[in-house]
Amino acid sequence: MIVCLSGGVGGAKLVRGLSAVLDPEALVVAINTGDDFTHLGLEIWPDFDTTLYTLAGLANAQQGWGRENETWRVMEELRARDGEAWFSLGDKDIALHLLRAQLRHEGCTATEIAAVLRQRFGVAAQITPATDQAVRTIVHTPEGALGFQQYFVGRRAEPEVRGLTFAGAEAARVAPTVLEALRDPALEAIILAPSNPFLSIEPILAVAEMRSALGASHAPIVAVTPIIGGAAVKGPTAKIMRELGMEISAAAVCRHYGDLIDGFVLDEVDAAEQLSIEAQGVTCARAQTLMLSEKDKIELAANVLAFARTCLKRPPS
Amino acid sequence: MIVCLSGGVGGAKLVRGLSAVLDPEALVVAINTGDDFTHLGLEIWPDFDTTLYTLAGLANAQQGWGRENETWRVMEELRARDGEAWFSLGDKDIALHLLRAQLRHEGCTATEIAAVLRQRFGVAAQITPATDQAVRTIVHTPEGALGFQQYFVGRRAEPEVRGLTFAGAEAARVAPTVLEALRDPALEAIILAPSNPFLSIEPILAVAEMRSALGASHAPIVAVTPIIGGAAVKGPTAKIMRELGMEISAAAVCRHYGDLIDGFVLDEVDAAEQLSIEAQGVTCARAQTLMLSEKDKIELAANVLAFARTCLKRPPS
Repeated sequence: MIVCLSGGVGGAKLVRGLSAVLDPEALVVAINTGDDFTHLGLEIWPDFDTTLYTLAGLANAQQGWGRENETWRVMEELRARDGEAWFSLGDKDIALHLLRAQLRHEGCTATEIAAVLRQRFGVAAQITPATDQAVRTIVHTPEGALGFQQYFVGRRAEPEVRGLTFAGAEAARVAPTVLEALRDPALEAIILAPSNPFLSIEPILAVAEMRSALGASHAPIVAVTPIIGGAAVKGPTAKIMRELGMEISAAAVCRHYGDLIDGFVLDEVDAAEQLSIEAQGVTCARAQTLMLSEKDKIELAANVLAFARTCLKRPPS
Repeated sequence: MIVCLSGGVGGAKLVRGLSAVLDPEALVVAINTGDDFTHLGLEIWPDFDTTLYTLAGLANAQQGWGRENETWRVMEELRARDGEAWFSLGDKDIALHLLRAQLRHEGCTATEIAAVLRQRFGVAAQITPATDQAVRTIVHTPEGALGFQQYFVGRRAEPEVRGLTFAGAEAARVAPTVLEALRDPALEAIILAPSNPFLSIEPILAVAEMRSALGASHAPIVAVTPIIGGAAVKGPTAKIMRELGMEISAAAVCRHYGDLIDGFVLDEVDAAEQLSIEAQGVTCARAQTLMLSEKDKIELAANVLAFARTCLKRPPS
């Protein structure tokens, strides 16, 4: 059994690779919920949905969100009626949101909703929101505190990030599927996907019960770098690191994770950073981490798994 | 000022006529909410929406619900994912439901939501749900108690109606716009639209405050027959009258309204019933009540108005 902590597009790609090289049912993916919000009365789970669509082979890879072969009839009418149109929702995507709304209306938890949606989309890997309670990423900027989507979509991630908080995280509980997996004697490794460490992984780690469950687990924790050659593959990771006064490098990400991790997967192009990472007491492996093709995803997943299985849990410092 | 109590398609047609012959802002329409329900997490207001679409010139007249030139992308995807597809929602219709959901999420009352929707659809007549609180029609049948949509759409109005109750009606309050109009010294008449007396008008009258406000109003109350030549134009009115052991006639509808009404508009084809209606102490007028064309709607509205303005309030018995 493998547990993966994951966020949006980059995480979903590695998860797709992992579900190809593992028995997918042995893969439990705790997905960031900090980006979730309610829009037009609908619960939107951007990272869960991206992962669901990616595993189902339905994701719009160019766009980085939503589905391929999408149509926009509802959105066109909303716009014509002066409705809120700043957040794009395709027709097929809306169908997913309505399935979720119906399940929520019937009293289902997020975990239960995720289980039904996996079944409806034929996804065997156990992808699930990291917590059943609401955790909301708040981005602190010179313009004030912004809700995540307000910052990310509404303001196109332009305002300077001065800090991040995660409303609801302290009181939230780890989703039962994830907690059970973290306590499973058969757990081999915990993988932090190459997602944005601040916006995708941090909201999961901010859940107090998650930090203690990770600390208590016998399995090594291995992070995969989201930074390749001093840049992020996608999204605002590098921009945020700069704004937070960090060096934009894999080693800086590794330092950010600190004592939490036992192993780190560095990109081949950043081989020069290996020594500085190992000096942090973290076992290091190199791989080609850019996932452009299906083959890339599978190869990276296989390499990460092989490495994680050899990693040792660090002794408590 | 005119107040109209109305339900679905027949009511919406008369309301369209009234809004053409009156200053539409002087027309307050209290719309049946007994058919409303929550589906796929969305509040659906079938009678309000039919009236809104009819006044905006967007209604699908053949179908009797929803919009013209509709598409079904969301529904197709819902069906493909094994979602609830028994209640059809077009893409444009879903946009309206999402506008409503957003307003509800922001804390708006039904009255406030209706005001925004009228503005977004360019409807000047003050159409509004009869009450801000939930009133739900329950249909008692040999199969047990069915929610209205369960009976009407789910079971195609086939089960025998043994009785009707209106959950929430006793405690519900009359919508402020309607209550204000009923107390307005400028109110000329209250019109009961040619809607189903049991399924459309009764849920409005079941609101205790509505009955007392109608009783206290100085304005005469005039009903327009939904029965023409012993049959209903549309829907299950005649079937329900039969099942409730009533004669299927305009006079029987008039008896059903009893002391509540001061005047009754009978169809020309039912001239023979005029004496029996007048014997009930109700002033009677005849008109062509079948509304096939825009001209029919306007002529009936003009005739009903002219008659209502001459009607006298009956002395309390």
